Amino acid sequence: MTATSASNMQRPEPRREDRFSFGLWTVGWQARDPFGDPTRAPMDPVHALERLAALGAYGVNFHDDDLVPFGTDDAERTRILDRFRKGLADTGLVVTTATTNLFTHPVFKDGAFTSNHRDVRRFALRKVMRNLDLAAELGAQVYVCWGGREGAEFGAAKDVPAALDRYREAFDLLGEYVTDRGYDLRFAIEPKPNEPRGDILLPTVGHALAFISTLDRPELVGVNPEVGHEEMAGLNAAAGYAQALWQGKLFHIDLNGQNGPRYDQDLRFGAGNVRGAFWVVDTLLAGGYDGPVHFDFKPVRPETEEGVWVSARACMDNYLILREKVTAFRADPEVQAALEVAGLPELARPTLAEGEGWRELAEWPLPDVEVLAAREVAMEHLDQLALEHLYGVRG
Amino acid sequence: MTATSASNMQRPEPRREDRFSFGLWTVGWQARDPFGDPTRAPMDPVHALERLAALGAYGVNFHDDDLVPFGTDDAERTRILDRFRKGLADTGLVVTTATTNLFTHPVFKDGAFTSNHRDVRRFALRKVMRNLDLAAELGAQVYVCWGGREGAEFGAAKDVPAALDRYREAFDLLGEYVTDRGYDLRFAIEPKPNEPRGDILLPTVGHALAFISTLDRPELVGVNPEVGHEEMAGLNAAAGYAQALWQGKLFHIDLNGQNGPRYDQDLRFGAGNVRGAFWVVDTLLAGGYDGPVHFDFKPVRPETEEGVWVSARACMDNYLILREKVTAFRADPEVQAALEVAGLPELARPTLAEGEGWRELAEWPLPDVEVLAAREVAMEHLDQLALEHLYGVRG
Amino acid sequence: MTATSASNMQRPEPRREDRFSFGLWTVGWQARDPFGDPTRAPMDPVHALERLAALGAYGVNFHDDDLVPFGTDDAERTRILDRFRKGLADTGLVVTTATTNLFTHPVFKDGAFTSNHRDVRRFALRKVMRNLDLAAELGAQVYVCWGGREGAEFGAAKDVPAALDRYREAFDLLGEYVTDRGYDLRFAIEPKPNEPRGDILLPTVGHALAFISTLDRPELVGVNPEVGHEEMAGLNAAAGYAQALWQGKLFHIDLNGQNGPRYDQDLRFGAGNVRGAFWVVDTLLAGGYDGPVHFDFKPVRPETEEGVWVSARACMDNYLILREKVTAFRADPEVQAALEVAGLPELARPTLAEGEGWRELAEWPLPDVEVLAAREVAMEHLDQLALEHLYGVRG
Amino acid sequence: MTATSASNMQRPEPRREDRFSFGLWTVGWQARDPFGDPTRAPMDPVHALERLAALGAYGVNFHDDDLVPFGTDDAERTRILDRFRKGLADTGLVVTTATTNLFTHPVFKDGAFTSNHRDVRRFALRKVMRNLDLAAELGAQVYVCWGGREGAEFGAAKDVPAALDRYREAFDLLGEYVTDRGYDLRFAIEPKPNEPRGDILLPTVGHALAFISTLDRPELVGVNPEVGHEEMAGLNAAAGYAQALWQGKLFHIDLNGQNGPRYDQDLRFGAGNVRGAFWVVDTLLAGGYDGPVHFDFKPVRPETEEGVWVSARACMDNYLILREKVTAFRADPEVQAALEVAGLPELARPTLAEGEGWRELAEWPLPDVEVLAAREVAMEHLDQLALEHLYGVRG
Repeated sequence: MTATSASNMQRPEPRREDRFSFGLWTVGWQARDPFGDPTRAPMDPVHALERLAALGAYGVNFHDDDLVPFGTDDAERTRILDRFRKGLADTGLVVTTATTNLFTHPVFKDGAFTSNHRDVRRFALRKVMRNLDLAAELGAQVYVCWGGREGAEFGAAKDVPAALDRYREAFDLLGEYVTDRGYDLRFAIEPKPNEPRGDILLPTVGHALAFISTLDRPELVGVNPEVGHEEMAGLNAAAGYAQALWQGKLFHIDLNGQNGPRYDQDLRFGAGNVRGAFWVVDTLLAGGYDGPVHFDFKPVRPETEEGVWVSARACMDNYLILREKVTAFRADPEVQAALEVAGLPELARPTLAEGEGWRELAEWPLPDVEVLAAREVAMEHLDQLALEHLYGVRG
Repeated sequence: MTATSASNMQRPEPRREDRFSFGLWTVGWQARDPFGDPTRAPMDPVHALERLAALGAYGVNFHDDDLVPFGTDDAERTRILDRFRKGLADTGLVVTTATTNLFTHPVFKDGAFTSNHRDVRRFALRKVMRNLDLAAELGAQVYVCWGGREGAEFGAAKDVPAALDRYREAFDLLGEYVTDRGYDLRFAIEPKPNEPRGDILLPTVGHALAFISTLDRPELVGVNPEVGHEEMAGLNAAAGYAQALWQGKLFHIDLNGQNGPRYDQDLRFGAGNVRGAFWVVDTLLAGGYDGPVHFDFKPVRPETEEGVWVSARACMDNYLILREKVTAFRADPEVQAALEVAGLPELARPTLAEGEGWRELAEWPLPDVEVLAAREVAMEHLDQLALEHLYGVRG
Repeated sequence: MTATSASNMQRPEPRREDRFSFGLWTVGWQARDPFGDPTRAPMDPVHALERLAALGAYGVNFHDDDLVPFGTDDAERTRILDRFRKGLADTGLVVTTATTNLFTHPVFKDGAFTSNHRDVRRFALRKVMRNLDLAAELGAQVYVCWGGREGAEFGAAKDVPAALDRYREAFDLLGEYVTDRGYDLRFAIEPKPNEPRGDILLPTVGHALAFISTLDRPELVGVNPEVGHEEMAGLNAAAGYAQALWQGKLFHIDLNGQNGPRYDQDLRFGAGNVRGAFWVVDTLLAGGYDGPVHFDFKPVRPETEEGVWVSARACMDNYLILREKVTAFRADPEVQAALEVAGLPELARPTLAEGEGWRELAEWPLPDVEVLAAREVAMEHLDQLALEHLYGVRG
Repeated sequence: MTATSASNMQRPEPRREDRFSFGLWTVGWQARDPFGDPTRAPMDPVHALERLAALGAYGVNFHDDDLVPFGTDDAERTRILDRFRKGLADTGLVVTTATTNLFTHPVFKDGAFTSNHRDVRRFALRKVMRNLDLAAELGAQVYVCWGGREGAEFGAAKDVPAALDRYREAFDLLGEYVTDRGYDLRFAIEPKPNEPRGDILLPTVGHALAFISTLDRPELVGVNPEVGHEEMAGLNAAAGYAQALWQGKLFHIDLNGQNGPRYDQDLRFGAGNVRGAFWVVDTLLAGGYDGPVHFDFKPVRPETEEGVWVSARACMDNYLILREKVTAFRADPEVQAALEVAGLPELARPTLAEGEGWRELAEWPLPDVEVLAAREVAMEHLDQLALEHLYGVRG
């Protein structure tokens, strides 16, 4: 039996309870890039529903303009939405999440909530309010806010404190809106360091969490970290998810793949930093994340529609494969022993004893630091066990 | 007259009121790097005081071990401190800031406040408490906390939520300590994404700000962003300083230079991302930052001690040069006109009118978005004006 | 007199002999990005000629499709070209360079010269041959080859050695073509590490130079390094230009601005890594580069056409400003003294004496390495002088 | 049966014919880093031989100073070398490779072969010559040259063309030396973009290959790419290995792990970019690389000596695991079918037919580009197959 003899093993199929969801803009991406024209035709949203449902997805997410093109009149809008509702009913897919396109139209060229132009800011808020009504009606529970245009290429072009004032004003107004309207909706800010702007406001999970703490209704706002966005800043995505969970703010997730600091690749989940993906899944399971498992990826431009469905399915497969691996890793007795040696259970113990304060700590007899320094941690061993689980060469 | 005819112009000299400060570890760095032995001899701290004072510095900052080597006995410690106090008195330098070395000794090999080993965490707290006493006695008002070892190379080696619990526990205890002791000291967390650990907890200004919002005494804790550390994550340092100022948390600054994502270069201030430095100074002036202007740099390894003082002086000179440039930029009528065109004054206006809420906004007649989209912003012009100020070819 | 009193100094105007050139695709860029629709209307190429000439440009560069849209019939092509020739004659602008668009059309979705599909490779060669005829007729002397689609997102999708065989085959054929046709044209390969492909073949100046050494007619092929492309890999752009000059291969240059590893920003020259720009200009002057000074930038998306011309002019202004600064830096006696201390003149001396070989070297009495190690290099001082020239605070 | 049921499968053991080798400096690294003192004691080289042999290694590599400390007198040198030769004989380990330490001692503070100081350059050459004698005597066939100090932090501090002249002079002299002495030794340049210098000359595989083409004896000089060094520049390491193989220049390899642009991590092979490692192994097998499989890694600083051997063994295990996976991937009929669809066999066919030149190509009837554009490439499918082999969920 060899390292690769695990072939053809049965693998889990995506099921409804796995709560996999996709954005209409992902499978429907026409594959236009900064240097190239589209390689794929526009996709009918109802067709997307049908194919996603057939693949085992649970839910969908959309920008207002994905479904109803910008500038559509009311009659046509109604027709489109009716057809979409029927598509949902027919396929059993759920709208888990919705969002607003505040970046494609040139009107948002210098920002939306933080545009220097006040009318643009007001228009942006109205665009969100309108889609919040739809999101609520369709049963979405999370409303994602990616502020891709909120930033600048040049230092003087954006007064950051003023822009943050406007950003806060926007979230405070929207928080009031969903509260007054009685919507069961929470917001999830999606950070990104750059692209399409030179630098984007709230560039990482950390900056977004910090911003949220300044809002009128912080409880209504969390984060939607995208694996690739954090990795574009060279950050450990799993650690970002972990801090968000620790602060009770992981309202949504965007899983995909990236190869470090460069343009936003949006590879299918798994097809980037594989070890990073393993630890992201581990972090989500450990932290009890129970929202939709959302994939925000783009099938690569050379693909035809066939490749779209292959890659969508692969996102789910990879999540399931990694979930099994992570589960097996945590259940492995040798891993548990290695965690013990590495001191993980002790990290979970408070540093101070019950009732101990600085006065008591000041009396604590200092240990021999040289002895302490020589302690065994065996982290290479622990990590190698993880890697062997990832490779599928351990049970 | 040519673009470079500005030569030999008189330049401002560093003055006490500029509040320039340096770490003893910066000028005293022996220039050992991962691949090379020291090129410079150890530096007597009192010698450092004398030279810094002569150059125009105002203050100093030190790690406990910079001044009193790890493991020094009490008698020797007293002797060293007495001599140092005399050096301060003789030179007129002020201790603006102090900090703890929780990273050099092998005992901290897997962290200090978040070491997996509880005794290490307790020892780390005791080490900080002891140095807080000294910092308070010497009049420091800010206590910097760089958690360089708080992190891991491997996913399983650090349970991030547990580590953040321990990190919080540490700051809560230390907050209680300075409060109970009546010290006029606030803490400033210094974020860094990686190096010496593969990934460090609280990797950016944002993550640190978010963490602070979870503490028992958030008012006692702010941030100490280092230009180079933010730029190691490819982030815009000025935007990070701006968010910290906006949240009232810019308690201290570490100015230096870096050339993007790579090892921590700690170049002298100015000798890295020059445009970034310009916007950092602009942000500090605009935000009314009034703490010490601290340089955390390392004279490059090939230099002798002479180069140490050249580069220390250059840090101050470059700050003063940039301060003049930024001031002139903001005072330039053409700049003010360009800011107007770019919409900056309008960004400072609230999006909503006095008393307006979502109901009123919902009644607002939507503007013609195509007209709005075509608006002139003239940001290339604005930025070119800034660049010409940086180049010294405008007044 | 203050650091910024140099204001309103007279600055040099762009002149014909400065040989500034622009791509039609730069000023004509409609500002569509991966997340946004165009903000600017298509630009008539003749209008571009007129405006560029008025600003002081010397030449233009174009992709075949910039001038004659893909798929245009022959009659219309003739009409367009006649009009363009007249525009050149009217404005006095020169076609310095031409290139082929082998990236926009979906047919090139998996590459052009290295597409896995043989017919695509053949079609690409034909497209180049046709435009080489036009380039030669219009007097271009350099033919730029940017292989933006030559690469892959996935390891198995491109067999790199086979692809390099095909790449070499293409250049060998094209070299034969221009030779047989008697065209006075040389090729310049433009490297780029990634975007729009996950990884691009010949990702840096170095890889391209290495590849050229394998060609049938290496003398016909050089490089066209773009500042931003080298900086996307975190490399020192000036050092790349220097190695290309050293190997006699700097056939063309693409100047622009970038802020480190991230998406391809194509900022106007100067508006990125300012210090890097200073050293690029210094390297070009020192190396005697005498080709066109070409700007490959994109006016940022929020701009209207007015901003296009402001930024085009600023590219030239910034080059002229930096050229004056670099010239003044090299002429400054204090700089020359610092270069002496730093050992630069000695670096220009061969390591071996005339006639010396390893046998003689083996007899050389070894120096005292500790004394040597203690030598003064004063590089911080030297660099600070450069920085002060950049700031315009020295003559 | 589940995705992880492959557990406890038998895995191949490292064997002599696998030709695994290690540097003495890797297992003997004392774990001093820029911010921390050593955590491990110095290691006796003979002890290293014994442990490596027991783990299944085939060979060792060393810097002169790893074995004989800098400044050792001749008698002690002889004693050390005799003991080391005996250790080799006792363990059966082979010296595959040797190299010179031209970076630790302060004498090399501004470079070695390209130091601005001529005596340093001459001293460096003598140091190499002396160790070449030892390398030849011990049977090494490759002599690695990592020019870690050949570079600068500041633009004016290194005249790149002059430095490249000196670099070439050094390799020409050393080539003459080994030729005249009749040594069966070839040189392998190891590129690195930065650290410990701000920018290093010959920063990537490409730059080194280009440089080699300018030497007197290019056939004697190849490259030694380190996975992590290429990834520090955000480059695809496998593509770099492939170009080196394609140019017949892959004389040696340094396998290890890295997490993108940041400090040089030197993680054990596998513990970084896992997918990258898979493609590196695939490239080596496909290209018929038959030199030693060398690991240049550093066991992480928190480890004790026990962790050193765990991680050394894991490097070999991971190579073997990946070798099996890659072999199975290439043998998988579904993969072969996918490669066919993706066009890989066609990429291996010349673009031109036998005897075809540009004249014949000019007569070729152009294909319908829209039909060509619509071709199926199925690269997501192909890549997912690779990923499933990596995960061990396919045979």
